[in-house]
Amino acid sequence: MVSISMDRITLMHGAGGSLMHNLIQNHILRILKPYMEFEVPLAALDDAGICDGIVFTTDSYTVKPLFFNGGDIGRLAVSGTVNDIACIGGKPLALSLALVMEEGLSLNDLDRILDSIEHTCKEAGVDILTGDTKVVERGSLDRLIVNTSGIGVRNPLLDSNLRYVNRSIRWLLDSNLRAGDKIIISGSIADHGMAVLSAREGYGFASSICSDVRPLNRLIDRALEAGGVVCIKDPTRGGVANLLNEWAEKSHVGIMVYEDKIPIKESVRAAASFLGIDPLEVGNEGKVCIAATPDRAEHVLEAIRECDEGRDAEIIGEATDQFYAVAMRTIIGGTRIIIKPSGDPVPRIC
Amino acid sequence: MVSISMDRITLMHGAGGSLMHNLIQNHILRILKPYMEFEVPLAALDDAGICDGIVFTTDSYTVKPLFFNGGDIGRLAVSGTVNDIACIGGKPLALSLALVMEEGLSLNDLDRILDSIEHTCKEAGVDILTGDTKVVERGSLDRLIVNTSGIGVRNPLLDSNLRYVNRSIRWLLDSNLRAGDKIIISGSIADHGMAVLSAREGYGFASSICSDVRPLNRLIDRALEAGGVVCIKDPTRGGVANLLNEWAEKSHVGIMVYEDKIPIKESVRAAASFLGIDPLEVGNEGKVCIAATPDRAEHVLEAIRECDEGRDAEIIGEATDQFYAVAMRTIIGGTRIIIKPSGDPVPRIC
Repeated sequence: MVSISMDRITLMHGAGGSLMHNLIQNHILRILKPYMEFEVPLAALDDAGICDGIVFTTDSYTVKPLFFNGGDIGRLAVSGTVNDIACIGGKPLALSLALVMEEGLSLNDLDRILDSIEHTCKEAGVDILTGDTKVVERGSLDRLIVNTSGIGVRNPLLDSNLRYVNRSIRWLLDSNLRAGDKIIISGSIADHGMAVLSAREGYGFASSICSDVRPLNRLIDRALEAGGVVCIKDPTRGGVANLLNEWAEKSHVGIMVYEDKIPIKESVRAAASFLGIDPLEVGNEGKVCIAATPDRAEHVLEAIRECDEGRDAEIIGEATDQFYAVAMRTIIGGTRIIIKPSGDPVPRIC
Repeated sequence: MVSISMDRITLMHGAGGSLMHNLIQNHILRILKPYMEFEVPLAALDDAGICDGIVFTTDSYTVKPLFFNGGDIGRLAVSGTVNDIACIGGKPLALSLALVMEEGLSLNDLDRILDSIEHTCKEAGVDILTGDTKVVERGSLDRLIVNTSGIGVRNPLLDSNLRYVNRSIRWLLDSNLRAGDKIIISGSIADHGMAVLSAREGYGFASSICSDVRPLNRLIDRALEAGGVVCIKDPTRGGVANLLNEWAEKSHVGIMVYEDKIPIKESVRAAASFLGIDPLEVGNEGKVCIAATPDRAEHVLEAIRECDEGRDAEIIGEATDQFYAVAMRTIIGGTRIIIKPSGDPVPRIC
């Protein structure tokens, strides 16, 4: 048996919470010291970096299993990268596709995943521009890892949106939130993480829980058209709990959310409760949180509810200067602090 | 025991030769059908894609072992991506860094690799702009996979270079070669592949063979200043044999090279001969082949020989319209056809 000491990587270092944050701060950002002035640098730890007007983002996908109810690794890769570009205020131009395959992967599975990539690209209105293919020996990998990076330019809708925001904002950064801003979620939480967990563990509720994975750039366009949007972020690893804590930390505000406003499907709530998992900490792949100025929030809500992917959207809370943490007014009337999770309770969801 | 049939991925599908080419043509390009008009699309299978003036490339690195004589996976990742951008005529702007780590990877090894990434970035004059971090369970990966994608813009030196080329060329594509063009290699072949193999297998010659991995954008700038360059490519997986066949195929020319002109270190030649490996098929990570018009080739050669990384450069052959294959005049006076290898004889060199 091999013991894992604190000087080794653990699963929680990749789970999107405070341990991953520490790894990035104390190792990656401590050692990598950019000498160029980027508009949005690596150290901002936002959804994408920006340099010379080019929005640039990367994600490697290690989801297990490769296929799950509602999606697969290919749809996940395209959606995740498109969403990262769109969330910061970019219009996706093109993606890269780098495949690392385990010897023995069936060409039939590969074709299914490529079909899904092609279909999701068309849905999002992007294309694959460049690629790479590697193969490693059997036993060196769980079948397939996909990396999609993406490039984009400033979304032209961003300027008309920002005319409704009486502040100096150029991109939709995590640090843009101010007290009073309303927080909208585009639909029900925890669907993706619970669907992946179900597919992996073979729980009986697998069939009733379906991943939400999808590209959201069109929904984001509708929100920007409504005007008054200050930040957008997708609650992936670490879920809504992690997202709200990142916003609160980087924007130096408190956040209050209302439990009874947070959309969650009954099957997801029951499964999470059965497994003792907090759905606020579970990753999503087809939802965004949108912060908008108080006077525009209802317009934004209305606009995204008109899209199929936003029809269950709700205003779930607001930023405040009364305290500097994330808090939730519970259904039974109490208030609990939503701490930054150490990581997502479901590993390898993306 | 599991048998591998033809409907499954094999190691040779990732080894840079004809089998990989078939996989890309018959699966990836058959299914992915870009609907946008890109300046240099995925289907060109060049070193990078180009869209709206942005040069974009991606590579995943799975080299085994992570550290070898002369380099490591971090130096490899930065150099490989910088070189892909520079080879097509781009000036690298920024890189992404996506790490997939195996649970149990030592933080000390991670820091060494990050140090190497930082050092190689500075050497090449680029920075990391965006990143991603994933962790998979022990046994799901060989310690670490690194993906670096990169963005760049058109190298301003390209225009002055092309003034010496009396043809309509915009980028340094594999299809630009014409009969009469001279082919230069920037230094000795097969160092990288043999160094990785030595480190992996623990052969006694490990210490005398050193990888050539390094960023070559500065050497490429010197070549462009000399003028008359029509294509540049780095002979990575599948080595010089694969590169020359790709050029010949895509440019519809023959290529003749002279064995006695091809630089190779005695230790590398001896090790390859001992192992029965053709050094022409072994991958390099710090060399480029440069094709230049006949009147400028000597100027280009002189210019790159002034760089440390090009001091052993030689003109090794030329493009011809006499035949449509790659041929080599051997030292003993015969001629042999250099076929497109099915793949690199050394797996997982990058």
